[in-house]
Parts: sequence; structure tokens; C-alpha cells
Amino acid sequence: MPEMFQVLPPANALKLICDHLPSNIRVEELATAESLDRVLTERLTAATALPSFPRSTMDGYAVRAADTFGASESLPAYLSVIGEVAMGQASQLSIDTAQAAVAYTGAMIPSGADAVVMIERTQKLDDTNIEVLRAVAPGENIINIGEDVKEGAELFDAGHILRPQDIGGLMALGITRVRVAAKPRVAIISTGDEVISPESTPGPGQIRDVNTYTVAGLVARAGGIPLPQGIVRDDYETLVSAARAGIDAADVLVISAGSSVSTRDLSADVLNSLGQPGVMVHGVSVKPGKPTILGVCNGKPVVGLPGNPVSAMVVAGLFLVPLIRKMQGVVRAPASQRVTAKLSHNISSVPGREDYVQVRLVERDDQFWAEPVFGKSNLIYSLVKSDGMICVPLDSSGVHKGELVEIELF
Amino acid sequence: MPEMFQVLPPANALKLICDHLPSNIRVEELATAESLDRVLTERLTAATALPSFPRSTMDGYAVRAADTFGASESLPAYLSVIGEVAMGQASQLSIDTAQAAVAYTGAMIPSGADAVVMIERTQKLDDTNIEVLRAVAPGENIINIGEDVKEGAELFDAGHILRPQDIGGLMALGITRVRVAAKPRVAIISTGDEVISPESTPGPGQIRDVNTYTVAGLVARAGGIPLPQGIVRDDYETLVSAARAGIDAADVLVISAGSSVSTRDLSADVLNSLGQPGVMVHGVSVKPGKPTILGVCNGKPVVGLPGNPVSAMVVAGLFLVPLIRKMQGVVRAPASQRVTAKLSHNISSVPGREDYVQVRLVERDDQFWAEPVFGKSNLIYSLVKSDGMICVPLDSSGVHKGELVEIELF
Repeated sequence: MPEMFQVLPPANALKLICDHLPSNIRVEELATAESLDRVLTERLTAATALPSFPRSTMDGYAVRAADTFGASESLPAYLSVIGEVAMGQASQLSIDTAQAAVAYTGAMIPSGADAVVMIERTQKLDDTNIEVLRAVAPGENIINIGEDVKEGAELFDAGHILRPQDIGGLMALGITRVRVAAKPRVAIISTGDEVISPESTPGPGQIRDVNTYTVAGLVARAGGIPLPQGIVRDDYETLVSAARAGIDAADVLVISAGSSVSTRDLSADVLNSLGQPGVMVHGVSVKPGKPTILGVCNGKPVVGLPGNPVSAMVVAGLFLVPLIRKMQGVVRAPASQRVTAKLSHNISSVPGREDYVQVRLVERDDQFWAEPVFGKSNLIYSLVKSDGMICVPLDSSGVHKGELVEIELF
Repeated sequence: MPEMFQVLPPANALKLICDHLPSNIRVEELATAESLDRVLTERLTAATALPSFPRSTMDGYAVRAADTFGASESLPAYLSVIGEVAMGQASQLSIDTAQAAVAYTGAMIPSGADAVVMIERTQKLDDTNIEVLRAVAPGENIINIGEDVKEGAELFDAGHILRPQDIGGLMALGITRVRVAAKPRVAIISTGDEVISPESTPGPGQIRDVNTYTVAGLVARAGGIPLPQGIVRDDYETLVSAARAGIDAADVLVISAGSSVSTRDLSADVLNSLGQPGVMVHGVSVKPGKPTILGVCNGKPVVGLPGNPVSAMVVAGLFLVPLIRKMQGVVRAPASQRVTAKLSHNISSVPGREDYVQVRLVERDDQFWAEPVFGKSNLIYSLVKSDGMICVPLDSSGVHKGELVEIELF
């Protein structure tokens, strides 16, 4: 009975579902080298300092800084070169007063030395003696033990999405295996008697399945594994058995609804048959996307998407993507999903609902513009022509041309 | 002889290399459903119109619009309902004057009808008769044939990166296989006598390999396949044979240089031995990243990265990522790599070089701030603490606090 349900603002609807999900995260252990874009489920700290020995940051000479004090082009300091620090080895050299050792970038600083003079600031006198043309301070051109990371320092908290530099940082400390969230498996069912497989040629009144594929793409980008379940007829028994098989094989179930009223109600009935508490949200104050159904069945979230492709994409972005991230424990969504731009046209809206407007991102006059792509919400190619969406907030009556807007990219 | 080479601005250096690469792109055919984030190598057009029949966009009644002209709550139009359009079928119904047929969202509009009245704008009189409470214009609540895509319309040009909605759009038209660029294979060699595998425990003077992993992550994100070749000793013969094996197995070769002067020169000699024309750029006006080596060997690009992790990441971002995109024919880099934010501190620079400054992206006072992460360019964890980099241009002496800057995310 849809009437029993209040149309909820999207944030409230999402929170309601999240509050009914179990808090535990399915974990797997992976080679760090294979964990790009995965979500850490453990807090990691540095077992050792990085670097673990003082290193030169320049090609030059390791010296005692005090020996160079006062040195200038007109009055150089004279040092005797007692050898070269071999790369990758502890140096046997020990630098005494008025001595120096050749030290390339990355080399270990030999004992006794406390600074490095850049080679450009020296002059060779003969095979063993150099002039230093400028003073260096103690510590100059050296990375000290623990300057990159101190022993025991926190590296990452659980919920962090691993980027290329993070993988490198873990490797630097010898953390070659990590515990990350298992990728949530998302079963996707497409319903509708008018929907056929893209491989088939539609007869009159038939359309090819679109939502399975747009949703699968969104799932993959959010870190999930899409499990397309095919197209299911608008029939209660058939749909229940497909939905049960889907939810049993997955962590999340998505039903892209047939577009008629009767099949939308069917989705709700099917969802209620799958487990407790069942349907929790039936309708959200979003345009497009109002006839959204959200529920939880025995601890697994179920998302009932409106049938039309634009609404389906808006709703999947609003609910499915955050759910997939939450199931991985993500603390902060990647910044790369959002860009700011100036709005190129006025957009009007109605207070009391969130409006999602598709926009194209255009670079003009050295800045980014969000250009609304107007079109009926049933047109898949209006999505194709767009780079993302902007949200006109619940309480707003519109956004003016020239205002800065945030684009959620897709 | 490094002296022979001029230090080039990054854009010129990249262009020089690109101009020496073959223009053909390695192509493979894929199921469209498997082609997310791949780059099209063909121009695609619509063989048929979308939709291929007129569809209702609302739940309601298909009518002749003229029958509703003048209708209002006080003076409704009376229509007789002759049936319901079944979903997914050509309707056998034909709408005559003063007739209507039930048509749900997505249903085919029966012949004779030219508009749909929303169900909310009607009232049932009895089993077969309705009142229409508001007039509809011809075409209202209908998507016409070709309104989404016209027959023959261009869908995508070669070079387009396929997003979730694009996959959906292709499926809608029955384009279930596409020709896309093969993923460029990128062999990555790490050199340096001080560099050891992350699995090993470093002795004094030794450090674990970092660049293989950060570069591999950047390669994967740019659409390439990283092929790590392990750590190779700083020895000409060993390095030549590893480099030859790498470039033979791949489309691009990356050598992360040992950090001493001698091994940097070694990289150049090795590169020259691999094929013509060999080294083309030896040094770029970038900080960090000046000692970059770029070349082309028998049609394959070779990138010699500086050894320190921050420089390596800057240089890989400046040259390797664009090269990988170019080899796939990418026309426009994804917008999601760039965000705009306000700079939180002054940054000074020296005209004549591009400075890359790592920043953290912080949300404060309802807007994004770019907060510089200062640190020696040898510190891998300064990268870990950053979300991206901003570029202080070649001719600039700095950027002021409060200015809008563009962040290249990593």
C-alpha cells in the first residue's frame, strides 16, 4: 500500500536504509600491489621509521657543516675527499674535521658528517681536494631518519581508498599485504514486459534493456561487482524467484522496475516477500526519480529503480552508489566525482523536492561552465550528452545563471 | 652528452615525443557490456531511430488532443475508454473521436491518438467512461519516434571514453559490440643499486622500491596495463638487456632511474641503444622533475623518470599519462581528474619553470580549499598526504592565497 509511505527527502531515505544495515564489513586480504582503489579495513601504522638512515637529497659531498662556515667564492673552505659512499651500502667512511666524502642523491650519510654540499657549490683542486664555495647549515640537503614517516606514526585509517601513491607509501614500509573490504556484489534485475535484450531486434512497443548496463557501470565505478540477472517478466511468481536468487547470490539487489503502475507495485510486493523489514521507503522527493523504492531484506539493501533511464541513473547515484561505498566502509567519497563550474543558464525548481539537472561541462573563457542539457527524463541520450548532474536543493526555487554549482560527474 | 640537450618546457617536450609516435592505434573488438572506460576507435551512428515508436511518458489515457480542447474541472471532456495498450506490443486499438485507451508510461501510442492525459487529470465515471479535467496539446506526454536519437545521427566520435550512460545508450540501439583501443602495455623497470624489493628488509643504505607501484597505479588509472619488470642493477649490460626485454613485451617503456648522476646517464645510454631516434629530451623545466629523459625507440615511447618518488609521480603525470591516453586516441581527458579550489597559502615560484606543488583538498566554509603540503620532494608520504597537485605556470612568480587554482587529482 504505497499510501502508507511518506515521500522522503533523499538524505533521510538513505539514512533510514543505512541505519538498518549491519555494521560489519566483509574483509579480504590482498597483495598491496593489487589493492588500487580498494578500501582499507584496518588502521595502519609504521613499524619502522622512513627513511631508516640519513640520506643525501643532492649529488655532492657529505661534510661537517662547521667546516664550511664562512666559506665563500673569495674565501673557500678546503676539504680533503676521503672516498665515495657506495649506493645501497652502509658507508665505512667516517668524516673528520676538514674531510668530505662523495655522496650522490639517496646515499647514506657517513658518520661524522651532518650536511651535504651540492656539487655545483664546490670546485675540484686535484684528485683528493676540493674547495667549498658556500657554507651549509647542519642538516642541509639531508633527509633525517623518520623525516618522511616517524616510527609508530599512523599511516591510514580504516575506510581509506587506496590511490597509486598510497600503494607506493605502503611498499616503502614493507607493508606488502593489506586487509580491504570485499567488493560488494550487486545483483541487477531488469523487469518490464516491454523490455528485451539488446541483442534482439525490438518489435513494435518493445525497447532494449538499458538500465542493467548503466547501473552495472555505476556499480563497477563505485567499487562493486555487478551481477546482471537478465530481464524478468512482470509476473509476481517469476519476479519473486528471480529476486530471491539474486539476493542470495549478492550483497545488494537492484530491481529496475517496469514502468507501469502495476509493475511498480509488484516490485514493492516482491521486496516485502524477500525478508524483514522489507520496503522502508516508497517515493522520494526527487525529480526525476520520485517512484523510488528502498528497503532492507534480512540485512541486505534492495533498491527499486524507476524504469526510465535518466531517473534510474539519478536514483542509482543517490542511493546505490553511497550504499556500495558504505558497505566497504568508505569514509570520504573520492573528490574526483565532484567539480565546480559556473551555471550557464537559469534553472527553476519547486521547493520541497531535490531537482537533478543534467549538465554538460564546457571550458570557455578559461573556466568551466555547467550547461544544462534539457530533455524529457526518458531520453537515454540526454545522459549521453551530459557529463554530470547538479542538484537544486530541497528548499530552493532555482539557481541563477553565473552562480557556482557543484557537478556530480558520471 | 646531456649538455647537447636543451631543457624543454613540459608541453614542448610532450609534443616532440608525440610527433615522433606512429599515429595508428591498436584496436580490439569487445562486447559493449565489457567496454566501460575504454576508448572508442570508431565513429558510431544510429542505424535506427530511438524510440522506434511513439511512447507515453506518463500513466494515463491516449487520446486525440482536439477532443480535450477547452476541457476544465467545471466543464470536463467525456471520453469512452475502448481498452488498454498492453506493454511491449503493438496496440491493435485505434482511437477515434471521443475515445481513449489506457496507456502506461512506456506504452506504444495507438493509432489515431496524438497525446496522453495524465491519470491525475481524469476522473472515472464508470467502467468505460472518463472525464478529462484539463486540455492537452498534440504531442503532450509523448516521446515521438527519433526524439531521443534520429536515424543516422552521430552517437560518438572515435576517441570517446565510454561511461556507464554511454554503454546504456549503445545497448538501447542494439550496438552490442564495439571497437576500442587495446590497452597500452607499459613495462616498468626500477633501477638503483640502493633499491630493494618491498618484501625484503632494507639494510643500511637500502630503500624499498616505491616507483614501480605508484607508476603502475597511474598506468592502470590512465587505461594502460602495467607490466612491472622488477629491479635492475645499475650496470649497462644488465640494464640494456632488461630494457630490451621490457620494450619488446610492451608498447611503452618506463625506467625509474637510480638517483646518482652516473645511473641517470646510464638510462640515456640504454635508451639510445634501444632504437631510433633514441633520447629526444634530456631535462625539462619542471620542479620537481628536471632530470627527466624522454625518447622514442623504433616507434615506442620511453620515459626515464627521476628516482625520487615525488618527482617520479609528477613526471609520470605530465608525460606517461598523456602518452597512454594518446596511444588510445583519447580526444578529451576525463574531467574528473581536475577540480577547482581556493588556494589557502601563498606559493612563490621562479619564472622559467613549471612548479608542481602538492596540495590537500579541504572542505571548509562550504567551499574547497587547496592546502599546500610542503615537503622535500623525496618524501613519499608528502604524496600520501596530498590529493593532487597544482601547477604554477612557466612564466609565473607565484600564486596568491585566495586565488582559484585547478588541482590535478591523483
